[in-house]
Amino acid sequence: MSHLDDLRLAVGEPHVLTGIDAAPYLTDWRERYSGRALAVVRPGSTDEVAAVVRACAAAGVPIVPQGGNTGLCGGATPDESGHAVVLSLQRLNRVRSIDPDNDTMVVEAGCVLQTVQEAAHGAGRLFPLSLGAEGSCTIGGNLSTNAGGTQVLRYGTMRELTLGLEVVTAQGDVWHGLRGLRKDNTGYDLRDLFIGSEGTLGIITAATLKLYPLPVARCTALLALASIEDAIGMLSRARHDFGASLTGFELMSGDCLASVVRCFPQQRLPFEGEAAALPWYALLELSDSESETHARERFETVLGEAIESGCVKDAVIAGSVAQSNALWHLRESIPLAEKALGKAIKHDVSIPVSRMTDFVRDTNHALQQAFPGIRNVVFGHLGDGNLHYNVAPGEGWTDASLLARQDDVFALVHDSVHAVGGSISAEHGVGQLKRDALVRYKEPVELALMRSVKQALDPLGIMNPGKVLAVTSR
Amino acid sequence: MSHLDDLRLAVGEPHVLTGIDAAPYLTDWRERYSGRALAVVRPGSTDEVAAVVRACAAAGVPIVPQGGNTGLCGGATPDESGHAVVLSLQRLNRVRSIDPDNDTMVVEAGCVLQTVQEAAHGAGRLFPLSLGAEGSCTIGGNLSTNAGGTQVLRYGTMRELTLGLEVVTAQGDVWHGLRGLRKDNTGYDLRDLFIGSEGTLGIITAATLKLYPLPVARCTALLALASIEDAIGMLSRARHDFGASLTGFELMSGDCLASVVRCFPQQRLPFEGEAAALPWYALLELSDSESETHARERFETVLGEAIESGCVKDAVIAGSVAQSNALWHLRESIPLAEKALGKAIKHDVSIPVSRMTDFVRDTNHALQQAFPGIRNVVFGHLGDGNLHYNVAPGEGWTDASLLARQDDVFALVHDSVHAVGGSISAEHGVGQLKRDALVRYKEPVELALMRSVKQALDPLGIMNPGKVLAVTSR
Repeated sequence: MSHLDDLRLAVGEPHVLTGIDAAPYLTDWRERYSGRALAVVRPGSTDEVAAVVRACAAAGVPIVPQGGNTGLCGGATPDESGHAVVLSLQRLNRVRSIDPDNDTMVVEAGCVLQTVQEAAHGAGRLFPLSLGAEGSCTIGGNLSTNAGGTQVLRYGTMRELTLGLEVVTAQGDVWHGLRGLRKDNTGYDLRDLFIGSEGTLGIITAATLKLYPLPVARCTALLALASIEDAIGMLSRARHDFGASLTGFELMSGDCLASVVRCFPQQRLPFEGEAAALPWYALLELSDSESETHARERFETVLGEAIESGCVKDAVIAGSVAQSNALWHLRESIPLAEKALGKAIKHDVSIPVSRMTDFVRDTNHALQQAFPGIRNVVFGHLGDGNLHYNVAPGEGWTDASLLARQDDVFALVHDSVHAVGGSISAEHGVGQLKRDALVRYKEPVELALMRSVKQALDPLGIMNPGKVLAVTSR
Repeated sequence: MSHLDDLRLAVGEPHVLTGIDAAPYLTDWRERYSGRALAVVRPGSTDEVAAVVRACAAAGVPIVPQGGNTGLCGGATPDESGHAVVLSLQRLNRVRSIDPDNDTMVVEAGCVLQTVQEAAHGAGRLFPLSLGAEGSCTIGGNLSTNAGGTQVLRYGTMRELTLGLEVVTAQGDVWHGLRGLRKDNTGYDLRDLFIGSEGTLGIITAATLKLYPLPVARCTALLALASIEDAIGMLSRARHDFGASLTGFELMSGDCLASVVRCFPQQRLPFEGEAAALPWYALLELSDSESETHARERFETVLGEAIESGCVKDAVIAGSVAQSNALWHLRESIPLAEKALGKAIKHDVSIPVSRMTDFVRDTNHALQQAFPGIRNVVFGHLGDGNLHYNVAPGEGWTDASLLARQDDVFALVHDSVHAVGGSISAEHGVGQLKRDALVRYKEPVELALMRSVKQALDPLGIMNPGKVLAVTSR
């Protein structure tokens, strides 16, 4: 029997795709990565996933796990060889259970994030992970890349939102680790080892997620700021005065918002005069457990003091849900405006907040020296130290001429990130895109530890080879 | 040169202890475990730790890392063979740096927890880990057992409070992983693998810890409850109405508080009549970012509604710091009263909150059936599902007659915990005490994964052998 026959036996003939049917799984959604595969298999249960892994292990065939195929680093796209099987988790899409008293839910890896959010909401609870791709990304992908988003400041990344896992190991065994416990100190933390490992150690098939109470009210404010130092001062003040009610603190450069207003004339900055022309803006969100009135009053008190102290130049507090949405829409339009104005080179970096001012000033300067005329597009989740620090074609540049220098731009920015103790991948993972950069910035001891773990859990090297770590000959 | 000479070369002669000098390190503080050792070595720096590990690896000598020696499961006590070296981290006790803008601090493993709390406070920040042994336990021990305590509900366990680690590997290399980043997705989560591994994979020498704003006000209330269901109802209500301001939710049985009042007549229950004789009480703490007045008003509103709905029978809100301390003193006196009334068999378990009612009722009943007359001592951190579910000698029992049945009591309680999806070690770890029980309750796939990780990172088997996992012949 051929390997394809084994796969058909494992998942049923209609769920082994080849040829044109397989094509959508072989290119990532941004069309940056393309590969080939022996087949795309779509198991319908954890046992079927295990059967596929056992068949592949027996045949020495590599497996590329895939969720919603919305990754940004090529982690779910096979290589060009055509030897691998793409294992899509999309049919494992059940919300298995919700336990409101324990504030947990068990969902399968193929559940779309938005479906999970809605199921939690239906049970009167909040599942707080929130990010741009939520309508199509899956929980399995969120787990494999330890996804972040806009509410990490308050609720943490996917890692902090997960209590237990069900995993198919590289040997095709099933680990039933779906515990729903806040405290459990019985042995090694295998859960966090699989989370963030991008399918290179095993396949996550389900997870127990933490739920939170729904906030009674949400309130948003936009702040105009004279400097990044003032933004950091305001972050510290907001953390102190709002405590855990502070669920968002997004930083945006004045240039970013100017681009949004230029590209989308129906949007406007709610400031006039000097406050409309400042270099930085911040979007703050409070999630209040008391009332809308209480949230607004807190904003008024704290922002009033901040304006009086000179830390904030001006502030607008949304007076309605519509106004709040309009403020968030400004923030969310930045990537769209960026796209409309030229193909940018994107960086997803994190920086200790205390080094942020130096990092932005020095890196902006170094980029202008090396690539005169480029535009800096700087925005991100300041509360987590996470910047989307992008470099766009400006005066004297075309998309093509900038793209030709992409590796040099990466190297300059990543060197600069590394020098201040930052990370070159804050929330998007490593995949293929940053695999070789990792070797440049991680010390050999850490890489050796990672390779030991990989070798221990996947001795045949069949789990998503070439992602995160290079394939090494043994 | 002998191995002892190598150790003296590595750390200096005065820091290699043998004979009577070594004795305090060879018995745990509760005097439940005693062992022997070749020597106790007290390195003064990370490089000295690495030199000791390299010398031991070369000689094939096992290493037992030790912090404040306050563990509850024998994890830091060597075995009887006398072959091992105890490696005390106590001289690595510097607070290396505090970064208030980044809300982080870097401390060495031998820092006493209270010293770390005070250093954070001195910088206007909160390090929230808080537990009974905080005056003598060390951060290294807290990390190796993933310590919990009374504020996990809001701030998480040691794992959630840690951003980066410095680790000496089993080969004597140093991994410089002291990152201070909230988001970093560049490879496998080695940090969480070392945290909670009880010194069996390597030696943590320093950590980057998360800091939080100091609360503006704290407020405490004691609630009288008719049932454990009502306590769970109140927990859900408190999580919803107080949000993240809720920093403590401790459950205590009426019997526990009666014992406290009996043993310590200067303490009293602040209730009268029916409310003084209810089966359950809960201690709630709010940490408010606004004001004392706001915290009290929130308590009054929410507890007023809870009393009206019948969920709470009576409530006392502390009117001063002294009153608040008196309420906490009741809670903290439970273990002392328990000790005064006889030697109890202790369990540190966690249970999904939704299964708590069934667990307590059914296990209390089963214990009475099997061991008629024993007393149940039930208290713990309900907000985390963590119960200290202890069994004390009652009518017809002596300390000795109960102790003789210890293994049977363990088995009954742990079977019952396992049946409802709970954990047999919530916050104390495994050490020697629960190592063999682990094999009973973990599925073979999980144990095999743990053994693979152990073998990968410590192939010589010299790191704290016989703790967490049994030594296997290879």
